[in-house]
Amino acid sequence: MLVRSQLQVLLEQQNLQGAKALLAPVKPVDIADAIEGLPEAMQAIAFRLLPKNTAIDVYENLDPSVQQILIEDLKRQDVLDIVDSMSPDDRVRLFDELPAKVVRQLLQQLSPEERQATALLLGYESGTAGRIMTPEYAALKEGWSIPQALDYIRRTARTSETVYYLYVIDTARHLTGILSLRDLVTGRPDQTIGDLMTREVVSIKTDADQEEAAQVIQRYDLLALPVVDAEDRLVGIVTVDDVMDILEQEATEDIYALGGLQVSRENYFQTNLFKVARQRVAWLLVLLVTNTLTIAVLRSQEAILDQVVALAFFIPLLIGSGGNVGAQSSTVTIRSLNTGEITSRTAARIIGRETVVGLALGLMLGILVTGWAYVLADSAAIAFTVGISLVAISVLASTTGTALPFLFQRLGLDPALMSAPFITTVVDVLGVLIYLNLATYLIGLA
Amino acid sequence: MLVRSQLQVLLEQQNLQGAKALLAPVKPVDIADAIEGLPEAMQAIAFRLLPKNTAIDVYENLDPSVQQILIEDLKRQDVLDIVDSMSPDDRVRLFDELPAKVVRQLLQQLSPEERQATALLLGYESGTAGRIMTPEYAALKEGWSIPQALDYIRRTARTSETVYYLYVIDTARHLTGILSLRDLVTGRPDQTIGDLMTREVVSIKTDADQEEAAQVIQRYDLLALPVVDAEDRLVGIVTVDDVMDILEQEATEDIYALGGLQVSRENYFQTNLFKVARQRVAWLLVLLVTNTLTIAVLRSQEAILDQVVALAFFIPLLIGSGGNVGAQSSTVTIRSLNTGEITSRTAARIIGRETVVGLALGLMLGILVTGWAYVLADSAAIAFTVGISLVAISVLASTTGTALPFLFQRLGLDPALMSAPFITTVVDVLGVLIYLNLATYLIGLA
Repeated sequence: MLVRSQLQVLLEQQNLQGAKALLAPVKPVDIADAIEGLPEAMQAIAFRLLPKNTAIDVYENLDPSVQQILIEDLKRQDVLDIVDSMSPDDRVRLFDELPAKVVRQLLQQLSPEERQATALLLGYESGTAGRIMTPEYAALKEGWSIPQALDYIRRTARTSETVYYLYVIDTARHLTGILSLRDLVTGRPDQTIGDLMTREVVSIKTDADQEEAAQVIQRYDLLALPVVDAEDRLVGIVTVDDVMDILEQEATEDIYALGGLQVSRENYFQTNLFKVARQRVAWLLVLLVTNTLTIAVLRSQEAILDQVVALAFFIPLLIGSGGNVGAQSSTVTIRSLNTGEITSRTAARIIGRETVVGLALGLMLGILVTGWAYVLADSAAIAFTVGISLVAISVLASTTGTALPFLFQRLGLDPALMSAPFITTVVDVLGVLIYLNLATYLIGLA
Repeated sequence: MLVRSQLQVLLEQQNLQGAKALLAPVKPVDIADAIEGLPEAMQAIAFRLLPKNTAIDVYENLDPSVQQILIEDLKRQDVLDIVDSMSPDDRVRLFDELPAKVVRQLLQQLSPEERQATALLLGYESGTAGRIMTPEYAALKEGWSIPQALDYIRRTARTSETVYYLYVIDTARHLTGILSLRDLVTGRPDQTIGDLMTREVVSIKTDADQEEAAQVIQRYDLLALPVVDAEDRLVGIVTVDDVMDILEQEATEDIYALGGLQVSRENYFQTNLFKVARQRVAWLLVLLVTNTLTIAVLRSQEAILDQVVALAFFIPLLIGSGGNVGAQSSTVTIRSLNTGEITSRTAARIIGRETVVGLALGLMLGILVTGWAYVLADSAAIAFTVGISLVAISVLASTTGTALPFLFQRLGLDPALMSAPFITTVVDVLGVLIYLNLATYLIGLA
């Protein structure tokens, strides 16, 4: 923040040398943040102050919207230099955001190797390991000596995304082994790459989901994961820093889905307001249908409500509590499914367990509410109706909240997105039905 | 899974050689998974089959509950060997789970260096960078030549958590610079460590929150982050693999809080059932209070409800939709605050924006619902009451859902945990109040 405001003051004073000096010791990601916070007219001016190498790093860290502005504002050749120097995976991420026409123009003007690397990644579907990998890795041959390998690393260090994991390939580019730079520098002089390498390599296919790549890296504590094609030829690597961003993005998507939002990958608060409203209303309409069913049930029971209007007072409490119990159960189930902590193998045990928890919760809340409904409504029949219904609704909510996520996962649907409306429907509709029928019966008795 | 069932069959047949051969090519984390899936009586048997180095890696990956079982089942000396060989940070994580008495015994029997390293970490509060760091890093001196440094790395590679980032310290252990192993192997023979290193080092204090350490590593794409004490002396490093687990854990905590669960760090489905129920009921009781207020409002408006019972039909729809709009707004706001995508600096703009979104959503839903309530209730007064109330409730929910998370963060409270009950209260209580007062007015007019 401080950098941004100082930078803005210096630029307003047209003190370009001062601005340059200010930015010199700042990390690229922080410079990118500062530039994003500047008024649009100043962004290109600030960017042009950067030395070329820094400019590339800063550009990669900018928000796609600012990257676009700069593409339009900078001179053709400056843009090309930057885009040509980006890592292929970062370049592809930029291209994903740019208009197709601009992408075509830029692609044509890239250097042949960079064009080829980019086209390779663009050939894989969005969201796959192939799309997010970089083809810039260090590949050794089994027969090489340690000095040969070190010499190769020295020559290619500038273009390799990482040199800490070294991949060993045969003449057909099949991945045959892996060693770390640590293994290399601690190896004995007489050892070859083939002696030092490990043959059991964890790898992933190009068409695997990017989330799977992230989970493998996390599970095995890797710094990078090799990506191979259908013939087991090494085509790229996915690095841990990219994977952290993917895990955060996936967590955000899960959280949004649980909160009833299915929004696009862009930053929510930078998305057009009416686009946001359109995305959100779809979900609200689904939940309106649920409420329609509840209204239908309420109308069908109008006689008892008309007779004892006090029954209506407790409906928000019953369906509210049921909704809360259901949300608790579905939240833990969905999250644990997504992190792989539980699998459908143990579904029966877990659903059974949650049913017991639902019963325990229902009894605790039910006893409390019965006493309290008696005070409010001054009728034992109403009090017991409310209390017993709450126990039933709590069990229902807990069981459904646990079972439905398993079911949706089985059906290949996203549990985080699908569960809430169905749980709400079951709890609201069945809950009100139980409540009012029980009321008719118990009040009839009284 | 396959490994686990094969292992179990071999152990049941007492084919220990076969079991050993089966596990030989398997990765430690997968062996740990297989052992966790075995019946308790077999876990120690399977574990004893492992070669010593593998045993340590496997042990570090086991669930704390299984680690405890093994501590009890294995011979004293076997346990000590393993615990003594663990990384200090993994050892501290184990100690956090063990009974204090066992920890004291184990600590006394550790080798002096390991005891000291462990005591250092245990001295920092749980959840801080100091607690999760490892003191096993590679530290160089500015004056060293490249061969001197490489020689040091070769000697210490076995005990350093990473050798890819090399930290440069002065005689008082102050952190003065950093270089990567990449810089070292690509350096020119005449360069010293002082020539190669970068002096701008991103570091963190021992008492910083572990989540902050994770965010810094993610922001700057680091493989490790140096941890310094109050006098800027290097005391340890936090590595990217540990940080990925922290980020996942923090995301889980956020998701659970949003789902109305404040549960301990243990695996939910392995926690005692009644402990879980106790943790969950606290939250449900808070929400019962909300519902109590709603009931009070409904009772105060009994006259109009008694007169027009059809009004009661629409209450679940109104507070349900309000709750959904509020959940959407609070979900994006809380998540964006937690990932640092938005800050309280822009609160006013964001709240304003969400109010507009709430109005847009309210109008879309309100028009639909008005038409539909007219069909159901056959009364223009009721239809307009429902429709207008829905617009008001939607604006209210969207605004509150955005504003409250900012407020709670300002007050130093966890927005994910605090927001839901307050938003529900505002939406339910004010919503019903608006609805029934508007009904009294409009129906009075009709």
